[in-house]
Amino acid sequence: MSTMPDLQALLAEASALRVATDEESRASYGLDWTRYWQADTPAVLFPGTVDEVVAIVRWARQHQVALVPSGGRTGLSGGAVAASGEVVVSFERMNRIGRFDALDGIVEVEPGVITRTLQDFAREHGMYYPVDFASSGSSQIGGNIATNAGGIQVLRYGMTREWVAGLTVVTGAGEVLELNRGLVKNNTGYDLRHLFVGSEGTLGFIVGAAIRLTQAPPETAVMVLALPDLSCVMRVFDAFRRALSLQAFEFFSDKALRHVLARGAARPFESAAPYYVLLEYVRPAGGAEPDLAVFGHCAEQGWVVDGVVSQSDAHARALWRLREDISEAITPHTPYKNDIALRISEVDPFVARLDALLAEAYPDFEVVWFGHIGDGNLHINVLRPASMALAAFRQACEHVNQAVFELVREAGGSVSAEHGVGLFKRDYLSYTRSPEEITLMRGIKQLFDPDGVMNPGKLLA
Amino acid sequence: MSTMPDLQALLAEASALRVATDEESRASYGLDWTRYWQADTPAVLFPGTVDEVVAIVRWARQHQVALVPSGGRTGLSGGAVAASGEVVVSFERMNRIGRFDALDGIVEVEPGVITRTLQDFAREHGMYYPVDFASSGSSQIGGNIATNAGGIQVLRYGMTREWVAGLTVVTGAGEVLELNRGLVKNNTGYDLRHLFVGSEGTLGFIVGAAIRLTQAPPETAVMVLALPDLSCVMRVFDAFRRALSLQAFEFFSDKALRHVLARGAARPFESAAPYYVLLEYVRPAGGAEPDLAVFGHCAEQGWVVDGVVSQSDAHARALWRLREDISEAITPHTPYKNDIALRISEVDPFVARLDALLAEAYPDFEVVWFGHIGDGNLHINVLRPASMALAAFRQACEHVNQAVFELVREAGGSVSAEHGVGLFKRDYLSYTRSPEEITLMRGIKQLFDPDGVMNPGKLLA
Repeated sequence: MSTMPDLQALLAEASALRVATDEESRASYGLDWTRYWQADTPAVLFPGTVDEVVAIVRWARQHQVALVPSGGRTGLSGGAVAASGEVVVSFERMNRIGRFDALDGIVEVEPGVITRTLQDFAREHGMYYPVDFASSGSSQIGGNIATNAGGIQVLRYGMTREWVAGLTVVTGAGEVLELNRGLVKNNTGYDLRHLFVGSEGTLGFIVGAAIRLTQAPPETAVMVLALPDLSCVMRVFDAFRRALSLQAFEFFSDKALRHVLARGAARPFESAAPYYVLLEYVRPAGGAEPDLAVFGHCAEQGWVVDGVVSQSDAHARALWRLREDISEAITPHTPYKNDIALRISEVDPFVARLDALLAEAYPDFEVVWFGHIGDGNLHINVLRPASMALAAFRQACEHVNQAVFELVREAGGSVSAEHGVGLFKRDYLSYTRSPEEITLMRGIKQLFDPDGVMNPGKLLA
Repeated sequence: MSTMPDLQALLAEASALRVATDEESRASYGLDWTRYWQADTPAVLFPGTVDEVVAIVRWARQHQVALVPSGGRTGLSGGAVAASGEVVVSFERMNRIGRFDALDGIVEVEPGVITRTLQDFAREHGMYYPVDFASSGSSQIGGNIATNAGGIQVLRYGMTREWVAGLTVVTGAGEVLELNRGLVKNNTGYDLRHLFVGSEGTLGFIVGAAIRLTQAPPETAVMVLALPDLSCVMRVFDAFRRALSLQAFEFFSDKALRHVLARGAARPFESAAPYYVLLEYVRPAGGAEPDLAVFGHCAEQGWVVDGVVSQSDAHARALWRLREDISEAITPHTPYKNDIALRISEVDPFVARLDALLAEAYPDFEVVWFGHIGDGNLHINVLRPASMALAAFRQACEHVNQAVFELVREAGGSVSAEHGVGLFKRDYLSYTRSPEEITLMRGIKQLFDPDGVMNPGKLLA
C-alpha cells in the first residue's frame, strides 16, 4: 500500500483542486488499458487550470511525491499506470476546446479533450483532424501527444507529432513553457515541442495544445483483399500505392479475423485466406477504375484470391470494423502485445524470419497478427491460454522477447512503433536506442525534471 | 588573427584528412552569405568520412579548438561564419548520394550533397524532393537540416524537418548517433533527431541523412496579381486557398520588384501596383476554371487590380524569377534582413503596425518587403544607402530592431522564421524564447557538447 502524501499542504495552495481518494477512483485511475499491473495510488488529482497543475508539481517537488499523468487510460504500454504509490493527475476536467481560427487552421485545446470530440469539432467547422484509431472515443489529446499516437491513417497523414503546432507544458521543475505557439515557421533554436511529443509524461505535463486541422478528405473507398501468403502483402501494397492515393493500408491474419467474427461480424466475402489487407483510397474520379485494374493485376499474379470494394459508407465502416475490432476482441485473452516497426523495405524478410521464430518459440500459443503494415508497423499479439496463470504466461512471453527484439535490432527496427515504452518496453529500450542515446535521454530528463517527480520509472529505468 | 592549432596532432589521427590553410580558402570558407563579419580562421578541414569527423571532434576537445560547420555558405544569419579564430569544417567532400529504396521512398545522403542535386536525383527516380529556395543550386542538405531550411513551398510541403526520416550525427562529445534510421514509426523515447534539425551546428555535425521523397506534384499554374493595398493580401490568400490546392503563396512590394526589373526582367503586366502576390496551384482538371472565378471575385471586391496566369512552363519560371531574384538583386545594397513569422491570422494587424513603425524609424532608408506570406513569414530588407558606411548603417538598423522585435513578441511571433539565429539574431533570441527555455537550451547544449567546441557563440551567447 502506498502512504498518503500531505494533501492538505497541496490544498492550501490550490483550494479548488478536486481530489479523489476512494477505492474505486484509485483502482480505476491508477491503470491504463494494460492488465499487467495492480493500481497502487493514494490519491487522484483533477486539476482544472494550469495554475493548479503548477501547484501540484511544486508540491510534489517539495514533498517528494511521484506523479503519474492520466488521460483516457487507453495506453498499451503501462505509461500511465500508478503501481508504485504515485499520485495520479487526471486531465479529464481540463477538456475545453478554445479558440479556433479558420485562417490559421489551428484550434487550441486543453489536454483532456477526447480525440473524437476534436474530430467532430473539426468536421463541424468544415475541417478535418486526421489522427484516428480504435480508442478515439475515449483517448484524450494530451495522452495522444505524450505518446505521439499513430493509428490507421499514418500512411497518409503521419503521427500526432505532425499536427502539433504548439504546446503549453508544465515541466517537472514547475515552469510553464509556451512552445512554438502555433507558428508554421520558427527557427529560433532547439524545438522543445518535439521533445515533449512522445515523452510519455517523463518531462512534464502537457496542459494545452495548438492543433493543426486540415482540409476534409476527398471521398474514399475501402477494399478488403484475401491473400494466399504473407509474402504477397508488400507486393500488393506496392502495386496499389503506385496507382492510387492511399489513405490506409492495413493487414490482419485469419486468426485475428476469427476473433472479430466470433463477436457477430460478417465475413467480407466467402473465401477464407490466411491473410487479408484492408486499403482505403481516394475514390477515382470521372468513371476510371484504376482500383479494379490493379486488383485484376494482383489477381492475375496470384497475389490476391478474393476481394470486395465498399458500396456505401456503411459498408466501408463495416469493413473497417473487421480490422479495428481485433484489439478489443482479443482483450479477454490478455494478449501479450508486441508493436514493432521496420523500414517498409525490411518488412518482408523480417516477417518470414519472425514467423519461423514464433512458430518454434510459441508452439502452444495462439499468435494473432495485424498491423499498419503500410507504415512498416506490425502488431504481434500472443494470446494467453485460458488454463494458464497470468504470471506464468507473462514470464513465458518475456522469454522469447529477447529473440524477437534481437531480430528487430538486426533489421534496424523499433521495439515500439506507436504504443510507446512505458513500463512495458522499458527494459528493451536498448534494442532500439544506443547506450549513448539513452545517456543523453537521461540527461534531458534531469534538465526538465530535476527531482524526478514526473512519471518515474517509465520510459527510463 | 587566429592562432594556429596543432594540426599535426590531428593529422596523426586522420592522415587522409584534407586541410587548407591558404589565405583564399580561409577567407572564402570562413563566411556565409552575410557580409557583416570578417573571416578569421586558421584552417579549413575537409573530412571525407564519418571517422574523420569523429577524429576532428576528439582533437578539438583535447586541444580546445572551436569548430564551425560549413555547408554551401548560403546562410543568412552568420551561423556558419568563423570570425573568432575557429577552425572551419567543410562538408563539400562528403557529397555522395547513397542507397535509394523505392518501397521506402527514402534516399540516404551525405551532408555535402547540393540541394538541387538531390532534387534532380529524385526526379530521375520518378519522385520529388519538395524543399526549394533561391539558393538550391549551392546550398547543401546538411546545412538545410542544421538550419531547418524553409523556402517557397512550405505552404504545401512544410520545412526541411518534415523530410528528415533519419540522421547520423557526430555530437560535440565525439559520439556517433544514428537517429531514427528512416522509420515511419518509432515511439521509443525522446526524438533527438528533431533536436538536431535547426540546431545550427551547436550540438554536433550532421554527417548523414535519410531523406523522404514524395510523389511528383501534379501540373501547376502560376499567377501574379497586383494589389492596391497591403490589407488585401490576406483576403486574396483566403479566397484562393478555399478554392484551389495552393503550392505557394508569395508576396513582394513594388520596391522589391523594381530591383529585379533593373536587372532586365520584364514586368508581368502593364499595371504597376504597390504590392504583388505570386501563387502556384494545382491546375484545375476537366475544363473548370475556378482560378479565374476567384480572380474575378477578388477583382470585383477591389482586392486585385491586375493579374496574369502562366501560359507555359517557361512563362511560369519567368514569373517565379520576379520573386526569387529579389534577394540576389538587392545584395549589392548589403541589406539588413529581418525574417520574422507570425500566425497567419496575425499578419494583417502586424503589417499595418510595422509599416507605420518603419516609415517613422527609417524615413531615409529604402525598405524592401517580400516573403512567404502564406506561412506567415515576412522578409523585411532595409537597404544601405550607397553613401553610408557599413558599420554606421548596421548600428542604425539595430537601433530599430528592438522596436520591431517588441512588436513581434506582442504578436506572439518569431524573430527568425527560416534563416535561423546564428550570430545575427542571437542577442534577440529572448524576444521569442522565454528565459526558462533558453536555460533549458543551454543545458541541452552542455549535454551534447560538454566542452563547447561546436560552433560556440552561435544561437546561444
